[in-house]
Amino acid sequence: MIILHHCLSARSFRPLWTLEELGAPYELRMLPFPPRVFAKEYLALNPLGTIPLLEDGATRMTESAAICQYLSVRCDPDNRTGMQVRADEPAYGAWLNWLHHGEATLTFPQTIVLRYRYFEPAERKLPQAADDYAKWFISRLRGIDAALAGNDWLCAGRFTAADVSVGYALLLASQIDLVKRFPPNVAAYWERLQQRDGYKRAMVAQHDAAVAQGVSPDSSASLQPS
Amino acid sequence: MIILHHCLSARSFRPLWTLEELGAPYELRMLPFPPRVFAKEYLALNPLGTIPLLEDGATRMTESAAICQYLSVRCDPDNRTGMQVRADEPAYGAWLNWLHHGEATLTFPQTIVLRYRYFEPAERKLPQAADDYAKWFISRLRGIDAALAGNDWLCAGRFTAADVSVGYALLLASQIDLVKRFPPNVAAYWERLQQRDGYKRAMVAQHDAAVAQGVSPDSSASLQPS
Repeated sequence: MIILHHCLSARSFRPLWTLEELGAPYELRMLPFPPRVFAKEYLALNPLGTIPLLEDGATRMTESAAICQYLSVRCDPDNRTGMQVRADEPAYGAWLNWLHHGEATLTFPQTIVLRYRYFEPAERKLPQAADDYAKWFISRLRGIDAALAGNDWLCAGRFTAADVSVGYALLLASQIDLVKRFPPNVAAYWERLQQRDGYKRAMVAQHDAAVAQGVSPDSSASLQPS
Repeated sequence: MIILHHCLSARSFRPLWTLEELGAPYELRMLPFPPRVFAKEYLALNPLGTIPLLEDGATRMTESAAICQYLSVRCDPDNRTGMQVRADEPAYGAWLNWLHHGEATLTFPQTIVLRYRYFEPAERKLPQAADDYAKWFISRLRGIDAALAGNDWLCAGRFTAADVSVGYALLLASQIDLVKRFPPNVAAYWERLQQRDGYKRAMVAQHDAAVAQGVSPDSSASLQPS
């Protein structure tokens, strides 16, 4: 059984959403945020204390966008869901590119904004750094906006794991004021993503698991970069 | 013919190094750094102005770690070089994880250090942010250090594209004072990486191309995050 260690709406939402899109069985273990402070026993499993951690037999993974690719191959080898783009499809390169882009280019800059605008104590807040990386993030949305002109999804003419990777970056942005600055195609795409059954099931799954496992279902605490 | 747009020792060194390890033919197009300022015609090819850009037929990619995976599959489908870890190998998940980790977790924080310690004008330097992310980077090296205990390479018992992804992050750190803080296994690994023929050929290739194409072979200008 695949085990996913998760904090509400943290990066681990990517593998959770992917599992729901794939219809794959999994066990969800909720943690308070940040686990390195509030669940120190977690450090025995993941010494870095970061979220997510995926356990699948002997496999251990901590990079959320990499897990999306892994699960798409591992849980659906015949690609019935279409979540993979395979090496013999013309969009293979684009798919890999968007998988990485969602985290490296679109999520990391937002963690700078979150850290220095919201989470650091007053004397350590850095409005300049927060503004620099808010601007940086918004400027990078032009690339998605162009890719979505005339397309519902990022590549291959269908919803894939790449949309999960980028979609999570938009979810994060939607929880801070950056959502107001989405260009038109990105804003419409973000609406489409939220209408997916897999996205809705993942939202319900994390809420129900938080309640059942005694973790506060207030997701705002999970926005800090882990 | 594969075309790689490259600035000296920028992230595009990852695909360059991968191409040399694979022994694949390519054309290297050197750009001054940053291209969005010094080579505005490049914006017609890549509107974000970022480096790298890989062109392969109709495929366009901009995420350096994704390109390492793509080239390993595209240029060596039978995996004679062993640069891929395939889905039926036990280390498949680890391989994907390290490919992402090299950029998202180990390179992006260094760009914060570079920006606010070195590249911003004096009145915009932010020593606190630079120190925060230097510390953040060093703390994340514990994960590599543990993986390398008793191992020459990160996964699968051989050199793979994952070592290129993480190796570039160490190259970047070696050009600033972070190299002094490498833990022992990471320091030894970094020495091993530099002894590889593929690494050495990539270094020569970028130097020779810079001279031939009239771009200054002073790599320090290329450290700024693009």
